Amino acid sequence: MKVSERGEFGFIDDIKSNTIFNPATIVQGIGDDTAVYRVTEGYDQLITTDMMVNGIHFSEVTTIPFDVGYRLGAANISDIAAMGGEPRQAVIAAAMPVDTEVAYMEAVYDGFKSICQKYNVNIVGGDTVTTTGPLVLNVTLVGEVPKGKAVLRSGAQVGDLVIVTNTIGNAAAGLAVLLAKQKSFDFIKECHQRPEPQVPLGRWLREHKATSLNDISDGLGNELNEIAKASGVTIEIDETKLPLHEELQEAAKILSANSLDWALFGGEDFQLTGTVPAVLADTIEMQPHIHVIGRVVTGPSKVLMHKADGETRLIESKGYDHFKHKS
Amino acid sequence: MKVSERGEFGFIDDIKSNTIFNPATIVQGIGDDTAVYRVTEGYDQLITTDMMVNGIHFSEVTTIPFDVGYRLGAANISDIAAMGGEPRQAVIAAAMPVDTEVAYMEAVYDGFKSICQKYNVNIVGGDTVTTTGPLVLNVTLVGEVPKGKAVLRSGAQVGDLVIVTNTIGNAAAGLAVLLAKQKSFDFIKECHQRPEPQVPLGRWLREHKATSLNDISDGLGNELNEIAKASGVTIEIDETKLPLHEELQEAAKILSANSLDWALFGGEDFQLTGTVPAVLADTIEMQPHIHVIGRVVTGPSKVLMHKADGETRLIESKGYDHFKHKS
Repeated sequence: MKVSERGEFGFIDDIKSNTIFNPATIVQGIGDDTAVYRVTEGYDQLITTDMMVNGIHFSEVTTIPFDVGYRLGAANISDIAAMGGEPRQAVIAAAMPVDTEVAYMEAVYDGFKSICQKYNVNIVGGDTVTTTGPLVLNVTLVGEVPKGKAVLRSGAQVGDLVIVTNTIGNAAAGLAVLLAKQKSFDFIKECHQRPEPQVPLGRWLREHKATSLNDISDGLGNELNEIAKASGVTIEIDETKLPLHEELQEAAKILSANSLDWALFGGEDFQLTGTVPAVLADTIEMQPHIHVIGRVVTGPSKVLMHKADGETRLIESKGYDHFKHKS
Repeated sequence: MKVSERGEFGFIDDIKSNTIFNPATIVQGIGDDTAVYRVTEGYDQLITTDMMVNGIHFSEVTTIPFDVGYRLGAANISDIAAMGGEPRQAVIAAAMPVDTEVAYMEAVYDGFKSICQKYNVNIVGGDTVTTTGPLVLNVTLVGEVPKGKAVLRSGAQVGDLVIVTNTIGNAAAGLAVLLAKQKSFDFIKECHQRPEPQVPLGRWLREHKATSLNDISDGLGNELNEIAKASGVTIEIDETKLPLHEELQEAAKILSANSLDWALFGGEDFQLTGTVPAVLADTIEMQPHIHVIGRVVTGPSKVLMHKADGETRLIESKGYDHFKHKS
């Protein structure tokens, strides 16, 4: 059945159940002019919004509808993680072509509900409209963080260590093997299709007084340049310290691709990168999911990489322009 | 210049100034992974989201770009007003065709900024992407209301008075005269093009213990049916008490249209309707912008209108289906 046949009210009935995963904060959920919710005393509030367009930000070739919803949730939750915050309340809006199958949209919402449930996020409202163009989805997410403790981009200090979480570049590598119709590579494929925001590590880093933090939505190089610029420092990283997953390295060989390019410029990993005080070196040594990749030094706002061959490379901000993003 | 020539970062530079109109609540505005803001102690939080599509929700024939942004803000602020709340923080996302003129989008954002400034709403974030379809805009607005005092739809009590604010049906009448290319009728044209959310009257009604409240986004008949259903009561209104503007009555004559249809079923007025305790009768008599139009009685959830000719008419919920809304 098409959404136009189901009608707005039938469609809203189809999707509005199973949306409250943190009921203690809710006064009024879906069903009034606005939702009403409560915040944690002594916390600051965080807000972020992300819009995705079919054919631009996702493709039906490489992404099933469940994963469209999951990734949209991941992108928003990741922004909250990048402040060291806790995601709380979400609203979702969709502009749908009238011939969209209800089953397709239900799967998109199921993916979104799935990640909201995983991170205890309530879906407290939305809007559903039609469009003559491709499907457009928008999520706005509110989170919170202890008062004054949000981890901004601007706090990196000379002498700090530069860190990343887990392994990087996997989402770009996963997309490449999907497009090349490679079998196996399940881990990096999942990194593209169903990326995980790093909420617990964001919290850990905030609690351990990280001085700056970004999520890797536009590639490590861009995120570090943003921190260098906002903090007024030079960031130096070591090529040999970049944590790369073995599947990414294997995929690079098979596809004759450059694993370093994926690691430096691959987007939508939703891993975290930032800076921590140098006194944390031993603590991080024992934290299996956080890796030191460099150091903050005095100098103009830029990012340098010490290469494996001993040379130094300037890592430019590619200024990832979403107006030109077509895949 | 087209937005694709300007690029994402240039475009964001063009629009990101002049966005903070209530700075005391802001810890971090635009420019990090999320915005960070503070709430008022002892207040509940409200959230609403609205999506608008070019050619569906607005037309370049009847709405200049400034008014597109203004109306999008009005729709969201009106939802906060309908809870008796105060609007606070907004995020705005746009999916734009690549050949959209930067000047057009700047005018849309100027309209949105204008209404945000008028109601002390901060614009704290956004997203800008491209689409192969028509322009899609989405705003999410957070507001607040004293704890436990949000005016829901479900609180109407038997014996309460039914009220509306100002005059109703003007936006629909205004659109009709615009489409008919009628001269003059400036007031009702402006009601369509640049409608005003009723924040002060929503606050007044909350402070005077209104028992239910909706904003008129889908027509008085639908809003009252929503209240009747949520509260489990019958609502009776008097045709002769419906407050109609003289321009609406004049327009109905000239266009051979039914002024009552505009008043009962015209959407996007953003006036408020709801119920208040009967003891407020004298107080409201002296409130020039709020009018008693009926009473809440015992009975099944429905809306009845006592007509001028003495008969009684059932006002059905037209179940305004936005999937079928094409003008």
